[in-house]
Amino acid sequence: MWTSSRYLVALSLATGGAYALFPDCINGPLKNVTICDKSATPLERAKSLVALYTLDEKINATTSGSRGVERLGIPPYQWWNEGLHGIAGPYTNFSKQAGAEYSYSTSFPQPILMGAAFDDELITNVATVISTEARVFNNANRTGLDFWTPNINPFRDPRWGRGQETPGEDPYHLSSYVAALIKGLQGDDSDPYRRVIATCKHYAGYDIESWNGNLRYQFDAQISQQDMVEYFLPPFESCVRSNVGAFMCSYNSVNGVPSCADPYLLQTILRDHWGFNQTEQWVTSDCDAIQNVYLPHEWSASREGAAADSLNAGTDIDCGTYMQSHLPGAFSQGLTNETVLDQALIRQYASLVRVGWFDSASDQPYRQLGWNTVATNASQQLARRAATEGIVLLKNDGVLPISIDSSMKVGLFGEWANATTQLLGNYAGVSTYLHSPLYALQQINATINYAGGLPGGQGDPTTERWLNLKPAIDGSDVLVYVGGIDNGVEEEGMDRNSLQWTGAQLDVIGQLADTGKPTIVVVMGGGQIDSTPIKNNPNVSAILWGGYPGQDGGSAIVDILTGKVAPAGRLPQTQYPSNFISQVAMTDMSLRPSDNNPGRTYKWYNGSAVYDFGHGLHYTNFTVNITSGLQTSYVISDVISNCKSAWLDQCPFASVQVSVQNTGSVTSDYVTLGYIAGEHGPAPHPKKSLVSYQRLHSIPSGSSGTSTLNLTLASLARVDEMGNKVLYPGDYSLLIDNDPLASYEFTLTGGNGTMLEKWPQPPPVREHKSSGYYVGGYGSYQAPVDA
Amino acid sequence: MWTSSRYLVALSLATGGAYALFPDCINGPLKNVTICDKSATPLERAKSLVALYTLDEKINATTSGSRGVERLGIPPYQWWNEGLHGIAGPYTNFSKQAGAEYSYSTSFPQPILMGAAFDDELITNVATVISTEARVFNNANRTGLDFWTPNINPFRDPRWGRGQETPGEDPYHLSSYVAALIKGLQGDDSDPYRRVIATCKHYAGYDIESWNGNLRYQFDAQISQQDMVEYFLPPFESCVRSNVGAFMCSYNSVNGVPSCADPYLLQTILRDHWGFNQTEQWVTSDCDAIQNVYLPHEWSASREGAAADSLNAGTDIDCGTYMQSHLPGAFSQGLTNETVLDQALIRQYASLVRVGWFDSASDQPYRQLGWNTVATNASQQLARRAATEGIVLLKNDGVLPISIDSSMKVGLFGEWANATTQLLGNYAGVSTYLHSPLYALQQINATINYAGGLPGGQGDPTTERWLNLKPAIDGSDVLVYVGGIDNGVEEEGMDRNSLQWTGAQLDVIGQLADTGKPTIVVVMGGGQIDSTPIKNNPNVSAILWGGYPGQDGGSAIVDILTGKVAPAGRLPQTQYPSNFISQVAMTDMSLRPSDNNPGRTYKWYNGSAVYDFGHGLHYTNFTVNITSGLQTSYVISDVISNCKSAWLDQCPFASVQVSVQNTGSVTSDYVTLGYIAGEHGPAPHPKKSLVSYQRLHSIPSGSSGTSTLNLTLASLARVDEMGNKVLYPGDYSLLIDNDPLASYEFTLTGGNGTMLEKWPQPPPVREHKSSGYYVGGYGSYQAPVDA
Repeated sequence: MWTSSRYLVALSLATGGAYALFPDCINGPLKNVTICDKSATPLERAKSLVALYTLDEKINATTSGSRGVERLGIPPYQWWNEGLHGIAGPYTNFSKQAGAEYSYSTSFPQPILMGAAFDDELITNVATVISTEARVFNNANRTGLDFWTPNINPFRDPRWGRGQETPGEDPYHLSSYVAALIKGLQGDDSDPYRRVIATCKHYAGYDIESWNGNLRYQFDAQISQQDMVEYFLPPFESCVRSNVGAFMCSYNSVNGVPSCADPYLLQTILRDHWGFNQTEQWVTSDCDAIQNVYLPHEWSASREGAAADSLNAGTDIDCGTYMQSHLPGAFSQGLTNETVLDQALIRQYASLVRVGWFDSASDQPYRQLGWNTVATNASQQLARRAATEGIVLLKNDGVLPISIDSSMKVGLFGEWANATTQLLGNYAGVSTYLHSPLYALQQINATINYAGGLPGGQGDPTTERWLNLKPAIDGSDVLVYVGGIDNGVEEEGMDRNSLQWTGAQLDVIGQLADTGKPTIVVVMGGGQIDSTPIKNNPNVSAILWGGYPGQDGGSAIVDILTGKVAPAGRLPQTQYPSNFISQVAMTDMSLRPSDNNPGRTYKWYNGSAVYDFGHGLHYTNFTVNITSGLQTSYVISDVISNCKSAWLDQCPFASVQVSVQNTGSVTSDYVTLGYIAGEHGPAPHPKKSLVSYQRLHSIPSGSSGTSTLNLTLASLARVDEMGNKVLYPGDYSLLIDNDPLASYEFTLTGGNGTMLEKWPQPPPVREHKSSGYYVGGYGSYQAPVDA
Repeated sequence: MWTSSRYLVALSLATGGAYALFPDCINGPLKNVTICDKSATPLERAKSLVALYTLDEKINATTSGSRGVERLGIPPYQWWNEGLHGIAGPYTNFSKQAGAEYSYSTSFPQPILMGAAFDDELITNVATVISTEARVFNNANRTGLDFWTPNINPFRDPRWGRGQETPGEDPYHLSSYVAALIKGLQGDDSDPYRRVIATCKHYAGYDIESWNGNLRYQFDAQISQQDMVEYFLPPFESCVRSNVGAFMCSYNSVNGVPSCADPYLLQTILRDHWGFNQTEQWVTSDCDAIQNVYLPHEWSASREGAAADSLNAGTDIDCGTYMQSHLPGAFSQGLTNETVLDQALIRQYASLVRVGWFDSASDQPYRQLGWNTVATNASQQLARRAATEGIVLLKNDGVLPISIDSSMKVGLFGEWANATTQLLGNYAGVSTYLHSPLYALQQINATINYAGGLPGGQGDPTTERWLNLKPAIDGSDVLVYVGGIDNGVEEEGMDRNSLQWTGAQLDVIGQLADTGKPTIVVVMGGGQIDSTPIKNNPNVSAILWGGYPGQDGGSAIVDILTGKVAPAGRLPQTQYPSNFISQVAMTDMSLRPSDNNPGRTYKWYNGSAVYDFGHGLHYTNFTVNITSGLQTSYVISDVISNCKSAWLDQCPFASVQVSVQNTGSVTSDYVTLGYIAGEHGPAPHPKKSLVSYQRLHSIPSGSSGTSTLNLTLASLARVDEMGNKVLYPGDYSLLIDNDPLASYEFTLTGGNGTMLEKWPQPPPVREHKSSGYYVGGYGSYQAPVDA
């Protein structure tokens, strides 16, 4: 194994962290090689290095835990780091000494709650803190410079255990969010060095963990080209347009081909069509996904074939060791060649050039960042604000905001009331602190009667193991229940099999409400749970949704409860009634309604949602007016002829001014949501589609603010069955907010539909190659039938 | 809380165990009360005690963790003890001091493997060891005298996570097994004291843990009366006929009514029809099932109603505290009365009379048992023998038995190869030792190349985290893979959602087989997994099924591999192909085939099983002849008129002699399986039905043994749609063994069907009572539809 060497820039070596060792371009063996020449391009520099590698050294460099090449002074490098909502494991090395430097960082809410803020500027600020803290930990040799975030697959089905990692169900929302995020993670493109490298995952069609025996490792997602372009791919296209540094191919197959071995996805679409083809842009596999190309996908005929097929398709890094183990055999069998391997390595090293890996620390501001820039007061406040901005007020009979003072006795119930790491959700590092609702209420001088629920009681429908509720109920003026679901039922590897409230929770909430005392329910967790029973119960006064609110989540909840902050978050996902999951198999990827599918997302679902996408109440009232920017009729040829963009769909269409008047008595944020609806393009038509949003901050009572909604041709385009984006003549409405609060109707005329973007078609489906000795046993599972 | 008192017989009080304190009938407050009068009947004795209790004291005595009544010298008593395959938690108090007295006991195989032995005598012997060890631990104040075992629900669906706790899928097999078990646990009925009290659970229709959102706590099993009598209830009827001391009612509802609140199940069938009506026979609820009667079942209109409805229906003990909490309210609301409560308590205390709880230790042999009777050499040998008897040889190309000596190099692979507690399955106590296959092979002077799999790797389809296989493969002459499934995928609370081999196992087995070296696969776990790929792979030489083989399971496996013991176990369940679960919802309780159901068990399944129920190869060959006991024709009226039994179905029909000749070269056991088939009674007809079995031991090569199969009228009866047992005229065949190896055809004539047992019909379904404030949210889930 690698040990410290005289050729490496010496950095203090913390336990277990060998990540931030840098090549020494001043005194090391490469000092006179182009890789060390700052005046050369990343391509020239990377090429010069790879040219020095032997074939064995090249093959060894395919793995995410790259060994480096000691004779050349190339240190080991760990490509796998996580940063979903703060820097996190598995290879981020936090100090184990409590309170010590490097023992914690800032832990923001899960994306599902930050998505609910509908505030792109907030997201850029959050991501900037994450990349700053990443740099500090990297400077201390405690993490790498590549982060396998964001998870930007749309939250297609409420059962998905990893939906919490995404900003929600809407592709426009995700596309806008992810652009803001990448800006904060990677920094400005004009910067000579990237802050860190973001990785858009999981490309593509990945949103099932384990459902009825359908495991993510072997699931074959059957997706129409229309749904691909309209729903599954927009966030990834946005990643490319944001110059993201890396992509991750997913475990699953798409239309028969494992993503990591699919030239159509990795070359035709990603690189050729979208232009993810800068020297420093690379693709990693999800972890061990290369082996999955062999088994369970049974795509390649041999282990060597799986390694070669993946490399040939355009997977540049193997999270795992399958390429390392089997590329030697693949080379001797002639299944791939060194040119392809070189290209993968050149991408890797060009990317490390872009983060300054080969350059002197003294020239790089990010390399100067120290511990004093981690978990700053500003970062802590931002984490709290990110949570308050996201929290959604679902129901309120007027009991909220509630002023809690020393005269008040608050009964506090539910498993989440005294939450600790539960607050963080998955992919969390070590947070600065963990402030539960109980902690936050204790900071107010009120009497708290705490009777929290049973940790891990999600499956237990009885209250036998709960604390005794009665004294806390009897002794309180107001009853606050903080519960819902957590990573015990939704998690990586585990999809939900019910949308209902779990365990004995509804029983307890019913008991609380039965008293007639003001009863407030705070629903936690990422996926929505069907809250029909408490929505319909007139004795439940108010309902908040709090997601996974991060390190200061309890404070954020109390900020909203007490009115210190007025709520303005919006549901980033549909809250379906619980029978939704008996109406459609999770494995049915289609969005439009059919005989076996009531339709998915607010655009297509043909049932009645419990709470709609975009729903969110306020403590005040708003009126909205569209003041300028639209005309009643447009001629399509004129609209197009004004367009100078290489991407027609990105051409500006209109800059719509929306005036938002706060007519109530409370200062409040307001999220302006702009939807397009109308009869244009092929039927069926979506009920509406989000095309723009903006969060206005702190509009005082009696005052107004203005949102500018910048519509593009993409705002109006439809996607046809071949996946082409087309601008159709017809009737259009711009709707502001869900009710809507304002609307503007206009028409487009001329032609039968004008192509904005022609979609490359996939090749005919290739033949499945059996591995010979292997006789059945894997392959796609079927869902059970209903009785 | 209760502390030691001068009124109690002083016993050394071990930590946490307050179970074996006994009332002091010599000097205590009750010394002159009938309860202490050994000449009185259990009824008289129990009545005299309950008469002294106040209402509060009575209500406190409804809980499984009974507080006792200090003023009367009645100590606390813990009714909840487990003894599925050895004494076990949660209230059995093993010493924590390794190797010390009371720090371990004998841990036998899981019932699913002991069921495969088809050896009732073995079961009685095992159960006798368990009850002996229970008495020793009770004498040391470390466990109670009531054991909530057996789990005797038939293993209806291979997905069931608790199928491992049962002896298999066949109702006759289970009925015969459970009679043998109860004999060993409770002792002989003529004994003045019972060894311990067994509890037949879960009555009735319980065999789903959590499937597609259908949780056991709220599932409503819709079962026809025909299937109830034919399939779900025979083991429970056998329990009553074996004078079992206790029943447990189940979480689920049956046909709309929660079992624990169902007078039809608890009174009409159990007590009135079957005669479970001795004073000392009681029913406990499953744990917290009384609360479930309220929620999630929403059966009773209030919490008090749930407590009263359950008590009124005939549930005598509440595992939980719901009755304790809510019976006071139920009494004040007039929902139940003291006569019903008295009856429950009289049953409890009469039962304690039967185990000698009130009587002097000096008069009771079981109270004299000490540590030297635990984990004796004989018990240890029995545990090993129980495992070897159960192990089933599924496939053998002649490689087995394999003589392993010092010249041989054995490659050992798979997650189970170095198993520890995995060997035990669920509901295990602390075993005497844990002998893995690796350990057992190491006792032979051979070279072992061990490269076991990844613990907990059931969901991981890659070998990235496995030990390096190559050196172990290359360096070995014979390759042994020990894997399968474990409690990571089948367990209480967790049903399987796939019947396929999990993770990377088939990949690894394929690698082993590809070498052409002799490759032997030992499949572990309770539920069968579809082994089609290795059955069909000619390079896989042999397949054994080993279940959960208990503390000495590794030795047992090696005993079979090496031929020290010849295999004679038979599969106690059908090994379905993996697509079975996409053909029928787990919630479809019906046995017969229909449009949405390929049929269940070997009797009705209309597909091709991978391995059949009853399948099991030997190291020798057997021929079988039916030598006497049957005639070719019977007149039904004659057959009936000879019957003297109160239960016509139990009347002897024939005593069939079967000669079994070992024509091969190896001494071996042989299980004589007797099936009835033929066209008699209403269509559809089952393919065949097991009606008798007997295990012959150690038949030497060239010798023969004789089985006596005692057929009753139940062997010939069919069950009609109303649940009546009827003897029909028609054609009958007695088939011996699966092929079959011998058969005898006979006819019954006369009439159109003669009733053997008229089945009491259930009352019309009662109305569901909503609890008023409670608005939806629970209730039965639906299964997802297939895409």
